[in-house]
Amino acid sequence: MPDLYFEDIRPGEVYELGTRTVTEEELITFAREWDPQPFHVDPEAAKESVFGGLIASGWQTGAIWMRMYVDTMLGSAARGSPGIEELRWLAPVRPGDTLTGRLTVLDATPSSTRPDRGTIRIRGEMVNQEGVTVMAMTSRGHFGRRT
Amino acid sequence: MPDLYFEDIRPGEVYELGTRTVTEEELITFAREWDPQPFHVDPEAAKESVFGGLIASGWQTGAIWMRMYVDTMLGSAARGSPGIEELRWLAPVRPGDTLTGRLTVLDATPSSTRPDRGTIRIRGEMVNQEGVTVMAMTSRGHFGRRT
Repeated sequence: MPDLYFEDIRPGEVYELGTRTVTEEELITFAREWDPQPFHVDPEAAKESVFGGLIASGWQTGAIWMRMYVDTMLGSAARGSPGIEELRWLAPVRPGDTLTGRLTVLDATPSSTRPDRGTIRIRGEMVNQEGVTVMAMTSRGHFGRRT
Repeated sequence: MPDLYFEDIRPGEVYELGTRTVTEEELITFAREWDPQPFHVDPEAAKESVFGGLIASGWQTGAIWMRMYVDTMLGSAARGSPGIEELRWLAPVRPGDTLTGRLTVLDATPSSTRPDRGTIRIRGEMVNQEGVTVMAMTSRGHFGRRT
């Protein structure tokens, strides 16, 4: 389990979050529950769609990124997130794609009201096996301080 | 299945997206897969956290909203989304909470390059049983045109 505190995370640092291959089965399973549009759940209908084949729900791409972020950076000092500043789905994610997550720390600001924590602003990206960025996001996260 | 085309969706319109109660079991199931932080997956550890008890992953709150949006508005004319302009997690979602989704159409713009489609900009909100807004989001969606 990672154990990063606010003080450990510095603007300009880049974290590699790891790699994950998306299977058709898990893509359909996620979409059936949360985003059952034909181009996410039905391979035949997806062929006829504007996407030309099955693509992952953008919410799944975000969730995959989140899981990488948790596994790499979020430990006992993580205090949740107030939200996302901007998220763009730049290219489709297709079955068999291998996604690599990356995080850049944009800034780190101690809380003015809570001396025991601070907030980082991050750039999150997900890139596929061809080097195409499929998702890019700017968001924030709260972290506890060591002292 | 809804069958809304670009022309059917007008700025200022408000769509009620329905209601869903979040169980502890589904909250933990989602978080174990996508966001396994202690305050999302472990009821005992969550009590000791800053949240004072188990809360849903924000990605699940977004996914619940997405499912409501699909069921209410997205049919054969839906053409995906370029992304989210802003998303805020405003209050925790806890086991047993009943969430109500709402969507307001902010604007609707025909594509300048593709005569067969247009893009809507929307405000999405999720409110709990006490009237507290737990999530608010501004995003975009592409829709096919009838003509």
